[in-house]
Amino acid sequence: MTGAERMLAACRREPVDRTPVWFMRQAGGSLPGYLALRERRSVEQIATTPELCAEVSLMPIEAYGVDGAVMFADIMLPLTAMGVDLELTTAGPIIAAPIRSAADVERLRPIEAETDLRFLLDAIGIVRRELGDRAAVIGIVGGPFTLASYLIEGGPSRDKLVAKAFMYREPTAFAALIRRLTDALIGYIAAQVRAGARVVQVFDSWAGTLGPAAYSTLVAPATAELFAAASASSVPSIHFVAGSAGILDEVAAAGGDVISIDAGQSLARAWERLGPQRGIQGNLDPARLLAGWPAIEDGARAVLDEAAGRPGHIFNLGHAIPRGTDPGILRDLAAFVHAAPSLRIPHEDRP
Amino acid sequence: MTGAERMLAACRREPVDRTPVWFMRQAGGSLPGYLALRERRSVEQIATTPELCAEVSLMPIEAYGVDGAVMFADIMLPLTAMGVDLELTTAGPIIAAPIRSAADVERLRPIEAETDLRFLLDAIGIVRRELGDRAAVIGIVGGPFTLASYLIEGGPSRDKLVAKAFMYREPTAFAALIRRLTDALIGYIAAQVRAGARVVQVFDSWAGTLGPAAYSTLVAPATAELFAAASASSVPSIHFVAGSAGILDEVAAAGGDVISIDAGQSLARAWERLGPQRGIQGNLDPARLLAGWPAIEDGARAVLDEAAGRPGHIFNLGHAIPRGTDPGILRDLAAFVHAAPSLRIPHEDRP
Repeated sequence: MTGAERMLAACRREPVDRTPVWFMRQAGGSLPGYLALRERRSVEQIATTPELCAEVSLMPIEAYGVDGAVMFADIMLPLTAMGVDLELTTAGPIIAAPIRSAADVERLRPIEAETDLRFLLDAIGIVRRELGDRAAVIGIVGGPFTLASYLIEGGPSRDKLVAKAFMYREPTAFAALIRRLTDALIGYIAAQVRAGARVVQVFDSWAGTLGPAAYSTLVAPATAELFAAASASSVPSIHFVAGSAGILDEVAAAGGDVISIDAGQSLARAWERLGPQRGIQGNLDPARLLAGWPAIEDGARAVLDEAAGRPGHIFNLGHAIPRGTDPGILRDLAAFVHAAPSLRIPHEDRP
Repeated sequence: MTGAERMLAACRREPVDRTPVWFMRQAGGSLPGYLALRERRSVEQIATTPELCAEVSLMPIEAYGVDGAVMFADIMLPLTAMGVDLELTTAGPIIAAPIRSAADVERLRPIEAETDLRFLLDAIGIVRRELGDRAAVIGIVGGPFTLASYLIEGGPSRDKLVAKAFMYREPTAFAALIRRLTDALIGYIAAQVRAGARVVQVFDSWAGTLGPAAYSTLVAPATAELFAAASASSVPSIHFVAGSAGILDEVAAAGGDVISIDAGQSLARAWERLGPQRGIQGNLDPARLLAGWPAIEDGARAVLDEAAGRPGHIFNLGHAIPRGTDPGILRDLAAFVHAAPSLRIPHEDRP
């Protein structure tokens, strides 16, 4: 099977010749080609120049041998088009004027993805043409809660207290914010698929800070619209929420052919809870990438053991590649996952 | 019932006249008496002067009407006694020389809680005498993983990547670190109980960043020794781990008469998972404290509804009181919880 076939088959929970693998935030990072490019260009220049964005998005396919090509695109990109003044920093996005009122919400403009985010769509087109079937182009969008929480917090925040306080205090304004974001994201998903994306991943990274009641009433209906947009575009979808163990049922109910989980929960248990009608992506602890090969191999073996060869497993990290990760070790990890069919024999049949 | 009777009965899952309530990090914060004291004294001066520490620990009993008196004591205090050079900042503890090798672990000294932490034990004695049975004195210790992760990270960290990488890369040194911390904490728990603590809460706040396999092999056995120490001292214990939904079974297996959960999971579901032989503490989203009274009342009502009058519920926040919380609103919240017996009638019997 080609990489794209492997990824798409796993999304449909069909048999695969090897477990498909890709890594969240694989485009960029410490790849030598990217570092060389960064000496001449800023992150913004690369992200908004289709040829450069495509070049960086393609690098991990050669460098790591992964089956998915996620775009070098920040989830905050559509917000810039909506009129938000933001800066991308290593600590996360900084918003010049955070949203703190219904009036602030009203100032967010609708977007036309085909024109406002043309640079990314053109980059997707290049990547798709260059790749053919070697790997599946993965389009990404931020989830509504995650984008809303960045807009309200304005800067880095562990507990999202300001965002959640706004949500509880001004539910109408919060709902209006979620509405505007969702409208923008629906068009953005459809445009990415028309441009050539073959899978869409929704990163609602911070929704795990909500309990099931708040998540399912205030966030899940909007998220469900994003997955409906992916389905309407006839591409499979992946739903990522960090720290989702407390709301896993609600996350799955909101949508996603594949549910992407982090290392804070057991992959096997999550799958038992979700049932065989969902795929699972994950869930190697990214901290292992900083701990040397034996720790990586142990962790990867444990993940593959938990997946137990079930159709629908996409190997990935529980969260993004940490800064400072040695690219060589990611290549070794992808090769290990691809070389590990024997691990997909159920426990009881092993010698 | 008195406050202490209420707290202790709930810890034993016996009937109570009202749901007991206290708030994590209630000592200090924005209480006017504390702010006045802080104009003259540093946090370190207050924490290490028994009369002042006792005064601050007692303040919330009058101010909020809570049933538990948690000590004004940072979980990092025993580490100073172990020879760690650390500074307590609003962003968390900063360690001058983080632990990065087995040799660094070897430099941690054993402590004699009775002498090294005499100031806190004396403060506990004062609080116990002053309170009588009005409220239960709650002694606190940090959990082994949380203290280890602070020592290794050296400063604020969301994902604990450095700590977890050390744990995976150097399991022997990590185990030695956990061993030294556990030995110190066992003596510290026993000393706090001898001094007058009637309940002990273990704050293993960051253990929720681990999956079940790593938690149960590398952390839980040490945590279990802490709960054994509390049992040996004949006091009930509370086990707090933030973001614990993915490892709830393992957290409960490690110990604690009462399991304290945050707002990222459903209290009712957690209780169904743990069974009636455990109490549950929690789990109002602290963000609601910044969102005004209607949001607080809605959230508190939902928490009490989920607890449904089961014996063993202690009302608390899902995490610490946020900075900037209005003390008046905490008094109103404690009164609301105490006045809410009708909420403990099961749903089907309500008009």
